[in-house]
Amino acid sequence: MTGIAGIARQVERRTGIKTTARDVENILSCLQRVSHFWEVVYLSQKPFNIVAETVGILINEGLLENREDGTIGLTQAGKELVEVYRIYPKRHYACPHCERRGLDLSEFNELIKRFEQETKDRPEAVIDYDQGYVTSKTVISRIAMMAERGDLEGKKLLVLGDDDLVSLAAGLSELPQEVVVLEIDDRIIDYINKKAVQLELPVKAYKYDFRQSLPGEFVRAFDTFTTDPPETIEALEVVMKRGLAGLKGEGCAGYFGITKAESSFVKWREFQKMLLNKFDVTITDIIEDFNQYVNWGYLLESIRDDYSFVQVKPKLNWYRSSMYRIETVSGFSGVDNEPQECELYLDNEALIYKPVSLTK
Amino acid sequence: MTGIAGIARQVERRTGIKTTARDVENILSCLQRVSHFWEVVYLSQKPFNIVAETVGILINEGLLENREDGTIGLTQAGKELVEVYRIYPKRHYACPHCERRGLDLSEFNELIKRFEQETKDRPEAVIDYDQGYVTSKTVISRIAMMAERGDLEGKKLLVLGDDDLVSLAAGLSELPQEVVVLEIDDRIIDYINKKAVQLELPVKAYKYDFRQSLPGEFVRAFDTFTTDPPETIEALEVVMKRGLAGLKGEGCAGYFGITKAESSFVKWREFQKMLLNKFDVTITDIIEDFNQYVNWGYLLESIRDDYSFVQVKPKLNWYRSSMYRIETVSGFSGVDNEPQECELYLDNEALIYKPVSLTK
Ligand SMILES: [Fe+2]
Ligand SMILES: [Fe+2]
Repeated sequence: MTGIAGIARQVERRTGIKTTARDVENILSCLQRVSHFWEVVYLSQKPFNIVAETVGILINEGLLENREDGTIGLTQAGKELVEVYRIYPKRHYACPHCERRGLDLSEFNELIKRFEQETKDRPEAVIDYDQGYVTSKTVISRIAMMAERGDLEGKKLLVLGDDDLVSLAAGLSELPQEVVVLEIDDRIIDYINKKAVQLELPVKAYKYDFRQSLPGEFVRAFDTFTTDPPETIEALEVVMKRGLAGLKGEGCAGYFGITKAESSFVKWREFQKMLLNKFDVTITDIIEDFNQYVNWGYLLESIRDDYSFVQVKPKLNWYRSSMYRIETVSGFSGVDNEPQECELYLDNEALIYKPVSLTK
Repeated sequence: MTGIAGIARQVERRTGIKTTARDVENILSCLQRVSHFWEVVYLSQKPFNIVAETVGILINEGLLENREDGTIGLTQAGKELVEVYRIYPKRHYACPHCERRGLDLSEFNELIKRFEQETKDRPEAVIDYDQGYVTSKTVISRIAMMAERGDLEGKKLLVLGDDDLVSLAAGLSELPQEVVVLEIDDRIIDYINKKAVQLELPVKAYKYDFRQSLPGEFVRAFDTFTTDPPETIEALEVVMKRGLAGLKGEGCAGYFGITKAESSFVKWREFQKMLLNKFDVTITDIIEDFNQYVNWGYLLESIRDDYSFVQVKPKLNWYRSSMYRIETVSGFSGVDNEPQECELYLDNEALIYKPVSLTK
């Protein structure tokens, strides 16, 4: 019987992502509670590729079985393993009222309805720009959080990429003074501008690729930025740079989601060092599961197809991200604003990453 | 009329704490919503001393009045100021179900009751060790969070300082394999040990001052640590060092609360740099208001008495802290374990700090 430390080493070798015995333990804990691959990814809060390889190895080792209906479950040997290692079923205590965000949206019931009505004809997520939009409750929770922290009412908001349509929700809330969207997808630019005119909202979208410098008129012009960045380290750096270049100065804030499904805690650490050491901001909040994404149509065709348990349609909104809020402190004087080439979407922690053995 | 940037500069000069116009704006926002000093401290999430000086200056400037009943409120001139600056009343959307923690405690109702019954005769908070314990819901939320993250069930837990009695709650939950408390206050050591024997809990408390090295038997012995540290930068460093020295290795976690009332975001940033650069851990969560403290008896006698609006008994549990969770990632190999002298409680952001003009 392979021990869990041995499994972790195998997973690390296959994925190129640092993997500990505790990661494998965590996945085995989730496998005692749910039987769909995507639910294990969600509950374990581990990188998709670590979960996929761990599950693959557990099946190979006869510890887990892949049933005909696409579900997975521990075999007798698997049950013995978790007993020997004293690995318990995963516990889960998410607040049903706020879905873990800590926010009461009852004052926003009208806004949620209005937002859903007005965006019924929204553009669907496309793979070209790694899109995948969040639930309406998530959008309105972002509005509530920014409003509560004094980052929205009467303020100028910069939205970097907006397939989530946060700009329209902010406009409909009547709180911000002005909202600017910088976006690469023409469909979304046109949609937001059309709606903004139609609904008379102080919202305007412009074409922008964040590998370019932030246009001069937007530098040091905003109180707050919000974004949902791609998660290669390079993309994170360039997106933070653009957001921060857009802020007026000290006491301003940035909001964005970082996943665990596409970013290991090793990447999180590297990113946090960047925030602290390179950009000199304070991290004021990290709220797990704040951002819930609506399942997007192109998922299964965009990911690895070597494991049949992966090629199963997810039921719950399994893809989530933690909400980060950062704040510029006293003395903040902006960041450089040079053009910067970078790989936006693909690293070995990305959903779309395919192990070398598969791409040959 | 003094502008808010000018007020910020005055506050910074008097407190020695970096203060921005946005800080003053935030306090003016809260003053439009509540009329008790301690509620302004809570709602603004700014250092006590910044709020005290800002309120003092606003009163001096005739923008705020200190009424005979101890409440404070904007004068006509103050109301004009917030209108000119477009400063709006503070918004507040805390989830009433989970009090912002994001956790559903319904599975823990019995545990909360049991914990409260068993600790009715707990030692009261004393000033000597900067004590002030948290509400029962806070204690049980800590248990729930650790359990959910796989950091408690079947694990060894180190509690560094425990006037909150987290150790007894953990024991009563029947989740951890073993709980060790290291504590400086003999009253608390004796109380915990007495209760642990009486209730047959796997909990043991030992005398310890964290300026000393962690005793050898506790080095690399735990899966998880939890603490509620004093907030000078030196104390934060030494407490993190002891907690991390106690962890077995990679994939282990630490939990602790950091306030905004006694730590500015400049101090937060310095502390976060320490976590990332010196200790090489990942910050996985920062949850605002997670820890709510029961008002302690010695507050008013321990703080400045130059402002009458400060010398008012708080009503709500105004003192809160954000819950940090940190995780050691792959490759973590411990920290040094040398004795270290340090100033534990007093810096210019502390509640007990008295401006120089007062101590002469
Ligand atoms: Fe809640
Ligand atoms: Fe998105």
